[in-house]
Amino acid sequence: VAWHLSQAFANNGFKVDCIYSKTIDNARKLAEKINTKYSNNFFPNEIASNILIVCVADDIYNELIPKLKISPTTLLLHTSGSLSIEIFSKLTNPYGVFYPLQTFSKDKEVDFCNIPICIEASDNKTYKEIELLSNQISKKVYKISSSERETIHLAAVFANNFVNYIYSCSEEILSSKNIPFEILHPLITETALKAITLSPQKAQTGPAKRSDKKIIEKHIKLLKNNDFKEIYTLLSKQIIDKYSAK
Amino acid sequence: VAWHLSQAFANNGFKVDCIYSKTIDNARKLAEKINTKYSNNFFPNEIASNILIVCVADDIYNELIPKLKISPTTLLLHTSGSLSIEIFSKLTNPYGVFYPLQTFSKDKEVDFCNIPICIEASDNKTYKEIELLSNQISKKVYKISSSERETIHLAAVFANNFVNYIYSCSEEILSSKNIPFEILHPLITETALKAITLSPQKAQTGPAKRSDKKIIEKHIKLLKNNDFKEIYTLLSKQIIDKYSAK
Repeated sequence: VAWHLSQAFANNGFKVDCIYSKTIDNARKLAEKINTKYSNNFFPNEIASNILIVCVADDIYNELIPKLKISPTTLLLHTSGSLSIEIFSKLTNPYGVFYPLQTFSKDKEVDFCNIPICIEASDNKTYKEIELLSNQISKKVYKISSSERETIHLAAVFANNFVNYIYSCSEEILSSKNIPFEILHPLITETALKAITLSPQKAQTGPAKRSDKKIIEKHIKLLKNNDFKEIYTLLSKQIIDKYSAK
Repeated sequence: VAWHLSQAFANNGFKVDCIYSKTIDNARKLAEKINTKYSNNFFPNEIASNILIVCVADDIYNELIPKLKISPTTLLLHTSGSLSIEIFSKLTNPYGVFYPLQTFSKDKEVDFCNIPICIEASDNKTYKEIELLSNQISKKVYKISSSERETIHLAAVFANNFVNYIYSCSEEILSSKNIPFEILHPLITETALKAITLSPQKAQTGPAKRSDKKIIEKHIKLLKNNDFKEIYTLLSKQIIDKYSAK
């Protein structure tokens, strides 16, 4: 997240003062990319920037926050989908959440412009400030409470992590017969597009939707991998229940 | 399939002689769209077209094929992902399979040009004929045996039917808190794009990939729907096993 977010800010006219990372290599690479300073000290001097975005793994925040040496007017933001805004509540600084709802990998560029930013703030004045900041890099800014963000993060685990894992199952099923995964690319794209334009509810098709038990049994027999058999059985049962009850 | 395929042929310079359907309304609507004849008789007169594409539900083929009254030179094609080419083997006509690997809904237009067509034929001469036909409407024509097609169909159930069902779970999780599904649209698009550009294996992220058991437990507690709890538990376990073993 830090990798992509810093570049989005730098490319949209913001001055990024310094990149901090425990891993000096990461800090340097990112700082070089956006032509700024870097440090692997957590944190050597008092930080006097207008904003400090703390962008670390969830279980590092609790240890890190009490140790921060920052000017009392610096706005503190975290970028986590699952942590409450209250992790900052012991500080007297203004604080908030800036959660970009997207999947990030270093080797895949992203366009922040269309990424939903879920924001939350310690007070109204701070909210306006975070909103202004967010509007500069994205067209899609949502006011989202910590409890709503928790739900969104959970839904995102389904729509991203689980969907991607299902893709990898289909890739393995094909590669076991030396069939290239690219044959599924147009289906994957259209499936995503249909869910967006029609809704997943209306876009559902397939043997389970039709309660076609002959094909379902044939497929389960065909699967050699027991993990895939379990997924096939569970999801088909749920789809049958959902659509045959109507 | 018949709905979209007939239009693809008609729009690419082919003359569609007649649309047959048990449901006269469906036959008429499609025939009107491409300005041709229609019938709900299976089949009143001997069919003398060059090609007859039999595009029905899998369990109708066995009953239908022996009753077909067709000229002995007519090329017979089926469009099923899961049926063998051998369903035609008792006929003396040339025959084959024309399987467009895509998800079709009447209310969502598709561009056939990028749809993979999996073809198979009774003999070499017929193969060339089906290949020529397929190349007219798609850039992506694959020679695929019945056994490979069965595997592709199974992989497509994962990449389309199961992925779409997972989308519908995330939609329900959001709607239970009155959060609009559109907030996930960019994530859904990017997830599909990453699987295609990076591979699903490399694109995997999330709590299960990191074996982050604290978040996993929190999410399972947060889920009210038992079906969703089962999916979350099963898929997280499989992702942990897959990535922690490395």
